[in-house]
Parts: sequence; C-alpha cells; structure tokens
Amino acid sequence: MAMTLGYLGPEGTFSEQAALTYCAKAEMVPIASISEVADAVEIGEIDEGIVPIENSLFGSIIPVLDFLITAEKSRIKYELAIPVEQCLISEPDMNLQKITRIYSHPQALGQCRAYLARKFPGVDLVASLSTAGSVSDMLLSEEPAAAIAPYRAAEIHHATVIERGIEDGKSNFTRFAVLGHSDHTPTGRDKTSLAFWFSSDAPGTLYQALGLFSNRGINLSKIESRPTGESLGTYIFLADIAGHRTDDSVAAALSDLAEISSELKILGSYPAMPALPIIPVS
Amino acid sequence: MAMTLGYLGPEGTFSEQAALTYCAKAEMVPIASISEVADAVEIGEIDEGIVPIENSLFGSIIPVLDFLITAEKSRIKYELAIPVEQCLISEPDMNLQKITRIYSHPQALGQCRAYLARKFPGVDLVASLSTAGSVSDMLLSEEPAAAIAPYRAAEIHHATVIERGIEDGKSNFTRFAVLGHSDHTPTGRDKTSLAFWFSSDAPGTLYQALGLFSNRGINLSKIESRPTGESLGTYIFLADIAGHRTDDSVAAALSDLAEISSELKILGSYPAMPALPIIPVS
Repeated sequence: MAMTLGYLGPEGTFSEQAALTYCAKAEMVPIASISEVADAVEIGEIDEGIVPIENSLFGSIIPVLDFLITAEKSRIKYELAIPVEQCLISEPDMNLQKITRIYSHPQALGQCRAYLARKFPGVDLVASLSTAGSVSDMLLSEEPAAAIAPYRAAEIHHATVIERGIEDGKSNFTRFAVLGHSDHTPTGRDKTSLAFWFSSDAPGTLYQALGLFSNRGINLSKIESRPTGESLGTYIFLADIAGHRTDDSVAAALSDLAEISSELKILGSYPAMPALPIIPVS
Repeated sequence: MAMTLGYLGPEGTFSEQAALTYCAKAEMVPIASISEVADAVEIGEIDEGIVPIENSLFGSIIPVLDFLITAEKSRIKYELAIPVEQCLISEPDMNLQKITRIYSHPQALGQCRAYLARKFPGVDLVASLSTAGSVSDMLLSEEPAAAIAPYRAAEIHHATVIERGIEDGKSNFTRFAVLGHSDHTPTGRDKTSLAFWFSSDAPGTLYQALGLFSNRGINLSKIESRPTGESLGTYIFLADIAGHRTDDSVAAALSDLAEISSELKILGSYPAMPALPIIPVS
C-alpha cells in the first residue's frame, strides 16, 4: 500500500507542488487547512503530512509551530524549500487589452501590487478564497478576466500562463516541513528544531541557553522568541541548530538545556537543506 | 494645523482603530497599503504613520521590519496593542437561519473556521479584499448574507453586530508602531528596537551579542533571526531591549554591539507597553 501524504489542498497550491517534489509516488490526500493536515498526522489518519513552516517574506507560519509545540506524536522528519512564483493566468487566446478583472487571494494580489498597477491600471481586483481557486473563479467569470496563481493551478485547469514570476519581491521561497510519527535518522548533515521556555524573565536566560550551543561550536540557523497567543507578554523560544539530536555534542547541549529551562521540546532532527546557515546579508 | 496621521485604510480596519486610540484629534489619512504608509512617512508627505508590526498569532509583520531596516529617516516613536476581535455582522433584522453566504478576507474566515463550522455549516464562504470591505460586499449581496469584520466596520456602515469575538483562538492582539522622523524622548520606562547582522556565520556571534546586554542586566523582550528575502539562507537579527538608547548602560551595550557586528541599525526608542517582558508561558 502506498504511503498516504496529506497536504493543504486543493490541487494546484504550492503545498501540492511541495508534496509532489517530496514524494511523487505517495497517495496524495488534499486537506482543507494546515491545522487539519497536522491533526490527521497526529491521530494517524495519514502516514505523513506536508505543511508550510516558514516563508522568506512573511516569516514563520505560527500555527504549525504551535501544533508542533503541543503535539504528542508528530515530529518534523524532512524539510524542503519551494520557490513561490506567482503567474498571470487566463483562458487561451485571451486579448490582454480586454481584461477587466483579476482574481486571486488578497495576499497574492498584494504581492503583485506594483506589477498590477503598471500593467493593468484600473482593472477590478476580485478576492478569491485561494490562489488555486482563483483560476476556477476566472474561468466562470462573465467578464474577460485573469487570475494570479501558481503555475501548477494553470496546468490542472488547462488554462494559459501569460507571464511567470510577476510578484514584486523576488527570491520568495516557502520552507515546508514533512510531519510524521518519527523524525529522520542521522545523515551526517542534519538539523534539529527545538522549542523551549523559562519560568523566569531574568535577562541572562536566553544568553545562557545559547551559550550551551556556542561553547560546543554548534551553529544556530534560526532563533525566534514569539508570543504564545496567551497574550502579547508571554514568550517561547524556537531554535534550529546544526546537527542531529543523537550526535554527542548536540545530545549533551540538549541535556544541559533541559536542566536550565522550564520546558524543552525537540520538534525533530532531519536532513538540513544546503542553504540555511547564518551568512552575511550584505 | 493638525498633525497628519496615515493608516492602512479603508475606514473600519483595526489600523483605523489603532490610529484613533493613539491620537483621535489627528487628521486621519487612509492609505492603501502598509508600505505606502511607511513611504509617505519617509518622504514627509504625512507627519506620522501607524502600521501593524506584530501579531500574537501570526508573528512579525515582515514588510514593516524591512522598511525600518532600510529607511533613512523613519523611526519607531510609539507602540500600542489593539485586541483583534472579529464580529459577525449583518443587516438589521436579518434572520440568521436564512443566511446563505458569509463574506470576509480569507484570513479572517480562517480565524473563525471552527465557529463557522459549528454555527453555519454548509454556508457559502465568499472572499473579500479586506474585512472592512466585506461589510460593503454583504450589503450589496442579493442573497441573505453576513460579514466577518471589526466592530468599527459595522458602525461605519450602520450594520448590526450579531456576535463579537467569534475568532477561534482567543487573546489575539496586534501590536502597532507609530513611525515618524524622530523617536520618543526618554520616559523612564522605555524600549529600544534594533536590527543587526554579522559578516561571519561563526557559532558564537549571536551569543556574544546577547552577552553585551545580559552582562549589563538589560532584558530582551524579543529576538528574531529572519531570512532577508534575498534567499532562505541569509539572516538578520531583530531585537527589542529594555531601556532608552540614551540610557548609559544601553548606550554602552549598543556601542559594543556596533563594534562586533557588520551593521547595527537602531529602529527607535519609545515608551514600553506594560506587558512585554519575557515571562513563562505555562
């Protein structure tokens, strides 16, 4: 029996593209929301699920991190990054001059704001529930219309891609995490995701925690303090460190961190993508 | 002449509510996007602008941070937090049993997913470009409809609030920053926002930087490494520390940080809201 792999549906989303990249021969299970994908993994309804976890423009996708912090069984077992490329999509043979409305998710319309102002001034922008859904909305439109959606959505609906990569900010990637009931075995080039917090707000707590890694030469590829949702005043730390949780130095650092923090949760160890160390931005 | 205060329009958004809370007597200037509010401050077209900077569920609002990192003149001069409360809104005397469609921004529909499934199973969910715009869309609907939007949007359109606080996750706040050409004078209870990065990815760089604050007893209320948008592999650090940049210990720490980092940008010092220290989440 094929492995079942849940993703944020419908077909034609960036999540489907990530799922196909990860394992094209899995039995694909489209699911209506990110949290339902995660819940289906947790209760074992699907073998694995793939969810967006970080975007290079919008940062961490908090509901996924919240899920991982509280999940009993689910761990991160793999990660991959997918370029977010928005396309202008229309019916075959559409005369671009005649287009009077453009459908998409409001966030995608926002991402293509400068392009739309330059190429389609005065055109009606119409909201759709998802980018993939905007192609269906466009095909049903009584007015000459276009949609903004991933390339894959045009393929599925046999629509025409007029222009690729129309988003204003370039180099936009989404990092996806594959969730399962176990994480990945060591590969020699691994990464470990953690969540931890403290019962005191003493200035030195985070500094002490980072010292446990720094002193052992363990690199950090992400650190984030974030409100827990309880109120803006409550924080939890999320970190990605180099190495597998079973590596000697990592295991020692994690054991020390468990001692000094109120709570430490290991979200998973998995193969690191090549391009995630801290490197200069200039 | 009244101070001009730009905000993310249209009227009826949480941004307008934040603007009215900050300074009700300012001349309010609704602007179409967050980045245009920021740009209008930078070029001096408006005196001040108010923009969302962090949400307790969705984390940092990256385009604002990017703007501040690159802006030459704009600084944070004030912060305030506004509760994000979604309301079910309809025409006066609507029979709830008859509602067949509910309009909102897809993100707000997502925030109220459990509520909608429980109270309005099978109802058509229709996307609007903004929550405030969904009230206009509802009023124009030919079918019996409702909208999900802030309370203020119902007031403006003389519509009826049927239920308040219908979002699934409670205690959702958005933190807003007021931008101007100068930051705030010291008040004795201040906060300073910073961005910094390094030219090396040595494991100890961030640890060293945090030590400059920890050793002086300066608390950290936020730390975040984030991709710069260049690619998923390039990171910048964003931090909020206790104190004003002109306080002796803060000034000394910042001077040391400028020495060891490739670049340090002070985004502004301003009065701290009471509830932002690091405190335990459990």
